[in-house]
Amino acid sequence: MNPIEWKVTAQEGNARTGILRTRRSEIETPVFMPVGTQGTVKGVRFEWLEAEMDARVILGNTYHLFLRPGVEIIRAVGGLHKFSAWNRSLLTDSGGFQVFSLAGLRKITEEGVHFQSHLDGSARFLGPETAMAAQAVLGSDIAMLFDECPPAGCGREYAQKSLALTQRWAVRARAWIDAHQPRCDNGQRQLHFGIVQGSVFQDLREQAAHELVPLEFDGYAIGGVSVGESEADMLNVISWTTPLLPPHKPRYAMGVGTPPQLLEMIARGVDMFDCVLPTRVARNGAAFTTQGLINLRNKRFERDEVPIDPVGGTCSACAGFSRAYLRHLIKAGEILGLRLLTLHNLHFYLRLMRQAREHLHAGSFRAFKDTFIATYNIPRPS
Amino acid sequence: MNPIEWKVTAQEGNARTGILRTRRSEIETPVFMPVGTQGTVKGVRFEWLEAEMDARVILGNTYHLFLRPGVEIIRAVGGLHKFSAWNRSLLTDSGGFQVFSLAGLRKITEEGVHFQSHLDGSARFLGPETAMAAQAVLGSDIAMLFDECPPAGCGREYAQKSLALTQRWAVRARAWIDAHQPRCDNGQRQLHFGIVQGSVFQDLREQAAHELVPLEFDGYAIGGVSVGESEADMLNVISWTTPLLPPHKPRYAMGVGTPPQLLEMIARGVDMFDCVLPTRVARNGAAFTTQGLINLRNKRFERDEVPIDPVGGTCSACAGFSRAYLRHLIKAGEILGLRLLTLHNLHFYLRLMRQAREHLHAGSFRAFKDTFIATYNIPRPS
Repeated sequence: MNPIEWKVTAQEGNARTGILRTRRSEIETPVFMPVGTQGTVKGVRFEWLEAEMDARVILGNTYHLFLRPGVEIIRAVGGLHKFSAWNRSLLTDSGGFQVFSLAGLRKITEEGVHFQSHLDGSARFLGPETAMAAQAVLGSDIAMLFDECPPAGCGREYAQKSLALTQRWAVRARAWIDAHQPRCDNGQRQLHFGIVQGSVFQDLREQAAHELVPLEFDGYAIGGVSVGESEADMLNVISWTTPLLPPHKPRYAMGVGTPPQLLEMIARGVDMFDCVLPTRVARNGAAFTTQGLINLRNKRFERDEVPIDPVGGTCSACAGFSRAYLRHLIKAGEILGLRLLTLHNLHFYLRLMRQAREHLHAGSFRAFKDTFIATYNIPRPS
Repeated sequence: MNPIEWKVTAQEGNARTGILRTRRSEIETPVFMPVGTQGTVKGVRFEWLEAEMDARVILGNTYHLFLRPGVEIIRAVGGLHKFSAWNRSLLTDSGGFQVFSLAGLRKITEEGVHFQSHLDGSARFLGPETAMAAQAVLGSDIAMLFDECPPAGCGREYAQKSLALTQRWAVRARAWIDAHQPRCDNGQRQLHFGIVQGSVFQDLREQAAHELVPLEFDGYAIGGVSVGESEADMLNVISWTTPLLPPHKPRYAMGVGTPPQLLEMIARGVDMFDCVLPTRVARNGAAFTTQGLINLRNKRFERDEVPIDPVGGTCSACAGFSRAYLRHLIKAGEILGLRLLTLHNLHFYLRLMRQAREHLHAGSFRAFKDTFIATYNIPRPS
């Protein structure tokens, strides 16, 4: 079998930095993947993602693209890369997380999930095989397995039953991949990541990891985090799980988190992240700074001539514009406001990952993390 | 008096091309000015306006900026250029057009217009002097006089009375300018344009021009067009008025129009234009092409792999993306869709002006205009 092209280049405690090579680009880890739900990253053109942030990989949502424009149209126009003109690496989720969020509109069976489209109510189906097939058509470079993501506080019995289903689906996904995607093709194949579930129960997380590792996926994600549990629970899940995953394969914490959470997870051996936070808070007028989150709607910024982040800001929004102007744009409902904030926030996340990599190479990650978190205030209303 | 730096470099019939120099940039005419209502051009970053379209001048709306963020904040942060980080020429309107649109919320007096803010209902006032003073604080390079713009079909009596008021206000504006803005300062001063009103009545338009010309403004606008009158009436107003305006000063048709209308007005001696059409129709999913306006929401574009304007499209939206992708973005409500369409439409307008200039230099403008209009279909629903 052609092993995944992944090399750890420096390590400090459990934290590590490395290089993951997909068929489309080289990705330095730890990496943050901007979320491009519907074939575009909300609020920022791919040109800026490449030129200003040097983003190497973004995430696409199978559920959304499966419904609109639909897999057949993406197939007809030659795949999601060609459709959206993104030429670097693309990771797609399986759609599982979204269909399970459709409470009342979906029915889970052994076969997969029957659900109603939130767009037109039409009856649709996704299962372990169809999710892999859809991602093959999308042409992502990293495809995620179809799993059930149980909600926080689901209870042990539900978590156990749910995990068992996720594990059976993983076996079916492995079979589908082996039948449809030959593994030995000189780095040109799609990579496939398994997902460790098990809610907040240590023994279930351990069981999940032990069963998934022999199935030899190319990387492993930790799912079911940041779904409503406490931060302590979340970090515990990460601490339990990473040591059980193969060190020579990348680890991906799905859907997290705040800047301090990302650093805490890197310290626990996580390599990859995605989160809607930087793009979503931008739409509410909020910006990440080295001193914490600020909301530019606040009247105290009305005549503030300094950039968003006067200490750590190095993006073009900080270089060109004052808080007073950004506040004006946001108050006036001008989309330039959300665009500049989105750019700034994504830039903040990607720079944080770059700093983490640099400090890992220098052996100073621990000190960097502690200083950053001490300076950074937990998000506060303003 | 320091004359305006304006030079006609080629002429064909009544049409002409020239170079207008403001204190901030050189503007080649005929020119289209993108509308930047609230300190930003909706849907496009200034960087793209400069780099991709080479826009030399944009328009700002005094009314909107007067209300939000307010003249005092703009003054505190050093003017609209510094606030918005636009470094090229800026033309501001006087706010007159907007306050007269506030039917029921405004009262016209000899002194000026008392009105209620559409944002918070507060009592505000704009008159010929306050409008000039506000524009001086905004720091625009070309400021427009405060006029009354009568609606289409207002009748001769109203038009006559309204015009008389506009003319008295012009005399007061001239006095304010002479008192506050010395005219001899080596090209560093703000320019001031008078506005010819008179509705669709030829003798009123003639009277307006004859009275305004001796007041020696730096340029002359034709206002009160595209306010609901027929296209024939609109072009008649232009035909009557341009011959009465000084040939050595620029002429500006306010708030027009479709691509064919712009070419018809250039043929009648107009040099400058502004219009919300390219940005506004973009927000509805429509795009200008050399074959007319198309609406990308149309199902026939679902799998259409060609660019927006396969014949004449030279913008980065045409270079990078298919109609199928744009349709997907618009249907999915992604702002990238409106951004790419805005970029495309503004690029279309600015390229049309560049083509007009090139054909005027080559002496082939008439042929270009006739061919363009014959090929271009009048906007159609789709």
